[in-house]
Amino acid sequence: MPDAHSSDPGDALDRPVVALVMAGGTGTRLYPASRSDRPKQFLSLDGVTGDDSLLARTVSRVSFADERYVSTSEEHAETVREEVPEAGLLVEPEPKDTGPALVYAAHRIREQVGECVLLCVPSDHLVAGEFASSATRAVRTAVETEGLVAFGVEPTRPATGYGYIEPVDSTAERSEIRQFREKPDRETAERFVEEGFYWNAGLFAWTPESLLREARNSSLGPLVEALDAGNPERGFAEIEGVSIDYAVMERTDEAYVVPADFEWDDVGAWDAVERVVETDEAGNAIVGDGLAIDAAENVLAADDETHVSVVGVEELVVAAYDDRVLVAPKDEAQRVREVVARLREQGRF
Amino acid sequence: MPDAHSSDPGDALDRPVVALVMAGGTGTRLYPASRSDRPKQFLSLDGVTGDDSLLARTVSRVSFADERYVSTSEEHAETVREEVPEAGLLVEPEPKDTGPALVYAAHRIREQVGECVLLCVPSDHLVAGEFASSATRAVRTAVETEGLVAFGVEPTRPATGYGYIEPVDSTAERSEIRQFREKPDRETAERFVEEGFYWNAGLFAWTPESLLREARNSSLGPLVEALDAGNPERGFAEIEGVSIDYAVMERTDEAYVVPADFEWDDVGAWDAVERVVETDEAGNAIVGDGLAIDAAENVLAADDETHVSVVGVEELVVAAYDDRVLVAPKDEAQRVREVVARLREQGRF
Repeated sequence: MPDAHSSDPGDALDRPVVALVMAGGTGTRLYPASRSDRPKQFLSLDGVTGDDSLLARTVSRVSFADERYVSTSEEHAETVREEVPEAGLLVEPEPKDTGPALVYAAHRIREQVGECVLLCVPSDHLVAGEFASSATRAVRTAVETEGLVAFGVEPTRPATGYGYIEPVDSTAERSEIRQFREKPDRETAERFVEEGFYWNAGLFAWTPESLLREARNSSLGPLVEALDAGNPERGFAEIEGVSIDYAVMERTDEAYVVPADFEWDDVGAWDAVERVVETDEAGNAIVGDGLAIDAAENVLAADDETHVSVVGVEELVVAAYDDRVLVAPKDEAQRVREVVARLREQGRF
Repeated sequence: MPDAHSSDPGDALDRPVVALVMAGGTGTRLYPASRSDRPKQFLSLDGVTGDDSLLARTVSRVSFADERYVSTSEEHAETVREEVPEAGLLVEPEPKDTGPALVYAAHRIREQVGECVLLCVPSDHLVAGEFASSATRAVRTAVETEGLVAFGVEPTRPATGYGYIEPVDSTAERSEIRQFREKPDRETAERFVEEGFYWNAGLFAWTPESLLREARNSSLGPLVEALDAGNPERGFAEIEGVSIDYAVMERTDEAYVVPADFEWDDVGAWDAVERVVETDEAGNAIVGDGLAIDAAENVLAADDETHVSVVGVEELVVAAYDDRVLVAPKDEAQRVREVVARLREQGRF
């Protein structure tokens, strides 16, 4: 078990590991559980993750790190402070997706901590099993290669909604990355799974120097320069919102992948619920108080105050939180985005 | 226009017309709008009937009568008193369907009012157009024939959920009834519509004497005897719950039908909503605050506090009231009964 060795805390790196929990998103596809004032990372999704929020569980999961930071938007800073007071807080000058947020965080943490290695983890995913060993392997790889390290999750199905990573060597404990591939069609996804591609779990490890070096030669260059000049606001104003994958990971030659030993689900949309809770005999996944009569393969989710009944329906999502109800076909769960877009137009999200 | 003549208030009957509004039911198929503590007749179904409850509208509709009574259960008596203080109140000793309720009411009203003719109307139906003229014709028929008079609604579709009445003469303003037929299959319903059958709207006219005479020779006989003996509780204890149609109307030789000039809908289940509200371009019937994206032919109904969104679904009922949500295929809207049955078992209806 090489992992046991590489995750041995005694086998010290030459610098501290800083966990950076990314909590700037909204998770709109879990509307109405997620709302503008209650983004997905603050949900417990009772029955899915227990009583702790996804954020609290994430911060707890990285407790093996030497330091922990949470990066979020101004809007949610107060809630983060209350939810996870044990973590340092970084407030993004502007919400502009993961690219700017991660560059900003790397710059700030380097100022505050000095030489270190960053373990960057989304705050709203579900992880089960042994996390620290893969994480330790990733940060070690980041230090040793001076590259950018992604976590690769072994696919359990030909998902079309995820990004895929093709490793040069799909059997290695760390590998260079041949290519990133975003959201493939079904057929392509099946081929990817056969050929040993990984899911891109959105978790990364790098030193601040490595990330800033690569970001400088990307569309995020103006931000890095402005940060160096002590003017983050100007930096954010000068760039477009962009994901770290698109801006940097897919373009660098210094990308590595470390296979994840843990189970992972991004719980990206309501259809995910059936993967992470036990289903009834008819295949209904029920979170909260739900009654399914002659109904199969549905996802029913409700808050503690609400009771959901379905009769005679199949493969639907029915989600009821607060004063909002959402119904969609399970295989179109992503389309909750369209509902949120309309509600945003009306100032009602 | 013979109706204009027969509904002329100056063309007096030899006895007062007493309207009896039947408000003892629950209307379970409109769950979760209807609940044990808020039966259907107390709903306004905002957007369907305006702000007044179905009960209040019914009592208002029969204001041409000389006296008005509402018959209900002990449980709902207080609410009826508050809702329609202008009507007399009759409390059924036990809720045992329309048969016992109507016999009890006829007996009580005869005691209180003396010789009269009763116009019996459900409290939870929608009626539009000219009601008084048909009603006047019905009570006149009841007096003149000394029979039991049903209202016949001209079918607008081959409904399988209604009872049908075959008149001896489908062109007459009043006709003897050849037969009653309960809930036919589709093919039979189509034939009924072609052959000039009416829907049995559950509205009746009779004198107390006529009803009690016919009831005495029916399964309700022991109740009539107990009422004569001044012991209604014993009477109710001795009989089974039964509808007036099954116990009396379908068995008597003295049944008449008067065609209704008004539009009528029993709003029996959620699928009825699309018949009584204006639908959007995609055929969605929306009561309250609903958003339908790429969704067609659905019924969305919500109370004032709740917002319902659907995306990508067709021909569903989504109803959200208070802390309850119900989803079912529109063409299985009757199955809401099954949900209610389960909730009752749990003491949660």
